[in-house]
Amino acid sequence: MNNFSDKSLSLQARLQRFMEQYIYPNEQLHAHQLASAENRFGVLPIVKELKAKARAAGLWNLFIPEKHAGYSDVGGLSNYDYAPLVEIMGRVTWASEVFNCNAPDTGNMEVLMKYGNEDQKRRWLTPLLEGEIRSSYAMTEPQVASSDATNIELSIKTEQDHLVLNGRKWFITGAMYELTKLFIVMGKSAPDHPDIHQQQTQVLVPKDTPGVRIVRPLSTLGYDDAPIGHAELLFEDVRVPLENILLGEGRGFEIAQGRLGPGRIHHCMRLIGLAQRALEQSCQRATQRTTFGIQFSHNQSVREDIAKSFAEIQMMRQLVLQCSARMDEVGPQAARDLIAACKISVPLMTQTILDRCMQLHGAGGLTADYFMAEAFNYARWCRQADGPDQVHQMALGKQVIKAYSQAGEQ
Amino acid sequence: MNNFSDKSLSLQARLQRFMEQYIYPNEQLHAHQLASAENRFGVLPIVKELKAKARAAGLWNLFIPEKHAGYSDVGGLSNYDYAPLVEIMGRVTWASEVFNCNAPDTGNMEVLMKYGNEDQKRRWLTPLLEGEIRSSYAMTEPQVASSDATNIELSIKTEQDHLVLNGRKWFITGAMYELTKLFIVMGKSAPDHPDIHQQQTQVLVPKDTPGVRIVRPLSTLGYDDAPIGHAELLFEDVRVPLENILLGEGRGFEIAQGRLGPGRIHHCMRLIGLAQRALEQSCQRATQRTTFGIQFSHNQSVREDIAKSFAEIQMMRQLVLQCSARMDEVGPQAARDLIAACKISVPLMTQTILDRCMQLHGAGGLTADYFMAEAFNYARWCRQADGPDQVHQMALGKQVIKAYSQAGEQ
Amino acid sequence: MNNFSDKSLSLQARLQRFMEQYIYPNEQLHAHQLASAENRFGVLPIVKELKAKARAAGLWNLFIPEKHAGYSDVGGLSNYDYAPLVEIMGRVTWASEVFNCNAPDTGNMEVLMKYGNEDQKRRWLTPLLEGEIRSSYAMTEPQVASSDATNIELSIKTEQDHLVLNGRKWFITGAMYELTKLFIVMGKSAPDHPDIHQQQTQVLVPKDTPGVRIVRPLSTLGYDDAPIGHAELLFEDVRVPLENILLGEGRGFEIAQGRLGPGRIHHCMRLIGLAQRALEQSCQRATQRTTFGIQFSHNQSVREDIAKSFAEIQMMRQLVLQCSARMDEVGPQAARDLIAACKISVPLMTQTILDRCMQLHGAGGLTADYFMAEAFNYARWCRQADGPDQVHQMALGKQVIKAYSQAGEQ
Amino acid sequence: MNNFSDKSLSLQARLQRFMEQYIYPNEQLHAHQLASAENRFGVLPIVKELKAKARAAGLWNLFIPEKHAGYSDVGGLSNYDYAPLVEIMGRVTWASEVFNCNAPDTGNMEVLMKYGNEDQKRRWLTPLLEGEIRSSYAMTEPQVASSDATNIELSIKTEQDHLVLNGRKWFITGAMYELTKLFIVMGKSAPDHPDIHQQQTQVLVPKDTPGVRIVRPLSTLGYDDAPIGHAELLFEDVRVPLENILLGEGRGFEIAQGRLGPGRIHHCMRLIGLAQRALEQSCQRATQRTTFGIQFSHNQSVREDIAKSFAEIQMMRQLVLQCSARMDEVGPQAARDLIAACKISVPLMTQTILDRCMQLHGAGGLTADYFMAEAFNYARWCRQADGPDQVHQMALGKQVIKAYSQAGEQ
Repeated sequence: MNNFSDKSLSLQARLQRFMEQYIYPNEQLHAHQLASAENRFGVLPIVKELKAKARAAGLWNLFIPEKHAGYSDVGGLSNYDYAPLVEIMGRVTWASEVFNCNAPDTGNMEVLMKYGNEDQKRRWLTPLLEGEIRSSYAMTEPQVASSDATNIELSIKTEQDHLVLNGRKWFITGAMYELTKLFIVMGKSAPDHPDIHQQQTQVLVPKDTPGVRIVRPLSTLGYDDAPIGHAELLFEDVRVPLENILLGEGRGFEIAQGRLGPGRIHHCMRLIGLAQRALEQSCQRATQRTTFGIQFSHNQSVREDIAKSFAEIQMMRQLVLQCSARMDEVGPQAARDLIAACKISVPLMTQTILDRCMQLHGAGGLTADYFMAEAFNYARWCRQADGPDQVHQMALGKQVIKAYSQAGEQ
Repeated sequence: MNNFSDKSLSLQARLQRFMEQYIYPNEQLHAHQLASAENRFGVLPIVKELKAKARAAGLWNLFIPEKHAGYSDVGGLSNYDYAPLVEIMGRVTWASEVFNCNAPDTGNMEVLMKYGNEDQKRRWLTPLLEGEIRSSYAMTEPQVASSDATNIELSIKTEQDHLVLNGRKWFITGAMYELTKLFIVMGKSAPDHPDIHQQQTQVLVPKDTPGVRIVRPLSTLGYDDAPIGHAELLFEDVRVPLENILLGEGRGFEIAQGRLGPGRIHHCMRLIGLAQRALEQSCQRATQRTTFGIQFSHNQSVREDIAKSFAEIQMMRQLVLQCSARMDEVGPQAARDLIAACKISVPLMTQTILDRCMQLHGAGGLTADYFMAEAFNYARWCRQADGPDQVHQMALGKQVIKAYSQAGEQ
Repeated sequence: MNNFSDKSLSLQARLQRFMEQYIYPNEQLHAHQLASAENRFGVLPIVKELKAKARAAGLWNLFIPEKHAGYSDVGGLSNYDYAPLVEIMGRVTWASEVFNCNAPDTGNMEVLMKYGNEDQKRRWLTPLLEGEIRSSYAMTEPQVASSDATNIELSIKTEQDHLVLNGRKWFITGAMYELTKLFIVMGKSAPDHPDIHQQQTQVLVPKDTPGVRIVRPLSTLGYDDAPIGHAELLFEDVRVPLENILLGEGRGFEIAQGRLGPGRIHHCMRLIGLAQRALEQSCQRATQRTTFGIQFSHNQSVREDIAKSFAEIQMMRQLVLQCSARMDEVGPQAARDLIAACKISVPLMTQTILDRCMQLHGAGGLTADYFMAEAFNYARWCRQADGPDQVHQMALGKQVIKAYSQAGEQ
Repeated sequence: MNNFSDKSLSLQARLQRFMEQYIYPNEQLHAHQLASAENRFGVLPIVKELKAKARAAGLWNLFIPEKHAGYSDVGGLSNYDYAPLVEIMGRVTWASEVFNCNAPDTGNMEVLMKYGNEDQKRRWLTPLLEGEIRSSYAMTEPQVASSDATNIELSIKTEQDHLVLNGRKWFITGAMYELTKLFIVMGKSAPDHPDIHQQQTQVLVPKDTPGVRIVRPLSTLGYDDAPIGHAELLFEDVRVPLENILLGEGRGFEIAQGRLGPGRIHHCMRLIGLAQRALEQSCQRATQRTTFGIQFSHNQSVREDIAKSFAEIQMMRQLVLQCSARMDEVGPQAARDLIAACKISVPLMTQTILDRCMQLHGAGGLTADYFMAEAFNYARWCRQADGPDQVHQMALGKQVIKAYSQAGEQ
């Protein structure tokens, strides 16, 4: 049933080999460099080194979609062909950046490809594609339910040829990272516009603009996710020229809509990679550990946990592939039911699988000796990222009810 | 991603139309005929009538696999192409028989195609393909855990040119049905054979053979599943000629292995059909019912239930399709991990979805006014049919542990 | 912590002995008499016989609360002292009637004790206490969400010295039972009354009143619960004299409120009795069954299921006892948070425990060879009886939010 | 039903007042002092200050059981009377130490009361009771499944009048804490003893003994639990005099058995305190947050989550109280079924409740802005602490099966 293109299959094989040669063997070194870094949000030498290797190996910017193939060395990939690559990279939480395929930069680059003008592309897209700089997408605000984008309150006012920004953002991924130079900021430019979907504007704000303040790093379940991290930001009278507007004044909501679909699916594929890896390691442990005279692998409840996890991973993977294929066929907007289905299913199921696998590893399973605890945090966080699951269930439920209640009865 | 053949797509459309024209409109009549039948296990007039219609419409024996295409009017279908047809038929619990596609007859017909000799085919396969008779597969025994086929105890002894069978069977689907004329009986013919997989033989036993006794119908959760039903049987000195042996003495286990894969997947597809239908009816009800001043369709917990059910159905369907495609590619034996994944996931998830949908229908949801309670019973029963889920989890867990613990560590 | 009175402890012991001597040994006979009864809703000889025995043994009308002690031979019991007795009786689905302690009669008798006048008591309460007749409580209507009692639509009109009732009811437990002679009917007598809680009246309607029609028995999950059963009823110009009004015109809602608390707790205790018995039988089976060379009792996943079920039963029992004690202290109204907590927890947890225990019994666990499938149906039905769980979660959630959001923050 | 002594009720009230006056108002200060501490495992000034206040308030050493009442200013409390106090203190993760009631010191002090000789008590018990020093219990080893205490491998050899210890321990709570001066170490002194329960000895090892090495702090889910923390320890030729043996050579297993019951229950009560607090804060948030035009408190799925959490907390609390009362009546050994029931239920249910409550708080719910993420980590860790849940399910399942399979059948 799965019919990936030859290009995808070849990239899968090469990526897998790269992971085995360069990523897995360097996981401890990465952890060590981070633990002993002076600046937890600085660039880690091993990442810098591996980025060069990945680029040399032609495993670079794999995320670029077919319609923007011109930006890509490998010619662009469909969502369906890219999906297994994301899973492979996703098996190590920090690996995606090595291939210039990490969130939120891939989404930001796509925004610039789609909506940026030539100047904006030259200044920001080119160095992003080169992996020289990183970027953040500043949407969520602490004081409002930001899953409803019309709630956004950061104020954008025009003063002559400048915009002036005032407001607070949080959970801004990557903001503290040393390489990050650009914030794409969503704010409210026309709070009184009769169409609530034309009140917003998105603006390119260089990180070093006066008035931009990084208030603090945020942690989730005890993780600061350094060096990428999530920040709380304050914008106080931040002034940028008018030409920093993306696409056009009042078109912020439109950009936000256009950005989201594939990104959610990428999170899902990474989580599936982590779940798959946790399953594999649990199988290995099951043959290495004996309690009360019986090897774990012969224990019925261990086998049941392994079997359930295997089946759930198959289901998640097929769902995400189906959704990817559908996005390729009809676009993210028409595929939003399947995107929502992925969003509400994969993080939660992955969290459960990781919980089981940690338990199979004993108390050690909760420590940093394994990747699972950090992956668990990522899965848990994804149930809030891009809006809490409940909001997507609300939208999906509404859509499904509408679809089937209008069809005839059977 | 899904790429059904044109033949499958065309059959899907025609089948759907037939369901709309002839099956759904006759559900009440079917219930009425059954409730007022003198013999609960007799042939219902409406089923007889619809069988003729289905055959005339070319919607007959759709289950026949490609390699036995000669037996089929439509030329045989792959597992993958057949799967969506099973789902469509499965939306009404009694509909499969109308198309000569019901369990256990499809499995029995395949056994005869694969292992029967010409005489056996002429006598039994032909009328089965015509839908003139039905058959049962007599495997499970009350006193032993029959999911381990080597436990089977029914005794088969050779006396000159006859076999003599003694033993007890139960959960023999279809045994009491008026149309049923043939039992395929698994028994132990060589209890002392050193290879425990060569101790069993399968024998064709006409239902009216002296010594065959139907002890009683069995119910599950209050349902007797009439007119098909599940029976307890007693074999007391039942004598059949040697030529009734299927394939060969001592090859019963081999036949049992060859029979199972697709059958499990068919149960899964039918369950998905029922889950899908329950979801659709719940959506309709959600727009028709108001409590405490709010329409169900606006209630957040209703929307969450609908959204979860939608996502779960997508996942189940993709898993079963993946498994079907894999069976087509490598055969059921090599696809047994995915078959097990379906078996342990779909009945349980369907049970949960139906439980939710019944709850959405209020107390009435539990009654015979809707199809859901009966479907719930079918899903619950499938967690025991062909062996309890736990046995399949054991086997799958063992297989997955072996596969991944031998691969290198990552 | 548990400190039952000596009276309760003594009754527990005697009741247990009665169950062992007379109830368990007659379960098969009961099933046989029901299966072969000409009228599924007739009185079973064994029940009649055992009622006499129970009464002679002083195990009769145990449900009578302390404040109505005068009606009781044993002097009345607190909710707390009665709770363990309900659990013991509840271990066999039909046993409560033997002790004149079955729903809905206990609730109806309490209604008559509290709200009936002397004439009404003489005519109906006395024979109910004697066990000579049975009664039904006719509240739920098919066309409205009856968990909101103000929705009730059955029309009650006054014509001179008579009331005229018109409307439809369903899920009226006991209505078809041969012994049932009385319906307590809730209807709308003043649909335009400005206070929506004074629009309802409750009326005593003899079952044989002209115009009362039993439309059909209802089944849930395939069970008709005969001989008690649940009926759909039609009231067509049913005329009863004014003196059949209970308590007073417009006070129907008040009676409904006063009736419900203890009844819900009784259902819960019976369910706990069934869950406990299923656990015990599963333990016995675990030592009697061997698969794949290992006795069930040594299988880790069997032990986990047993351990979880044991813990859940402890928790349910303690919750219900806590709730009973609280009802004794402050009355059902002030204990409604705990009553709701029982209602939303016990049926669902019991359903899950029974599902596990059935699974441990193989396919046979689903049949009538064991009590579990019928008990499962009872648990499932209780998630709708007295209103769907979701309605109680709504009310409880609202109450808890109010309580804690008004307290200071910590 | 609950009948706490007047002493307990009075202490509950005073403790609650102390929490309100001194603990809640200092949570931010505590976090700040920890974040800015030079040594994450040093004593925090605020804790030192509050300890003095608590002692002055007579809220000190509340854990001391009745039979050791002589050590207590308040005269000793039963498990039942102490339980609600643990819940109150447990609402803030670091508060128990303020009252000298934190794990593992309470368990260690009890060990010394029960098994220590006068010299050992003078040297270690007295300063522990004064809160001047802290202690660790060194049992778990990384290389073996330590939930089976007979697996312990740390070697204890006698050389003349000294013991020599060699081995590795991990998850040793409190080991790095500045105040900690004593390790109670379990090791294997007679590996060839025919009785595997007499091979172990427990030894008092001053933390500053040469050869004791703190290898590293361990984190769980990203938390290092500073300043208490969990350490990996290495013992290399650690020499202590023979008089440091606790109770006697070969009696280590006996001590381990005697230590565990109440400790597990204390963890459970603390978790219930955290669950209760999370529920309360969620109720407050529900009235303060509005999305898509509807206040959270009116959202049906929010109400369902609140209602379920309320019911689960009631059930957990009653179970733990029942277990406490039972320990008081028959001792921990005879109450081990209920202790296991608490151990396998409370941490998992608390984890689920906290997960729900965090979700209700949006992305912020995962951060350190609330106490819930840290509490979640504590709950998750408790599913491994004192042995993984599965081990306790195994033991409990075995015990329950034995009990009920030997009873007669019903």
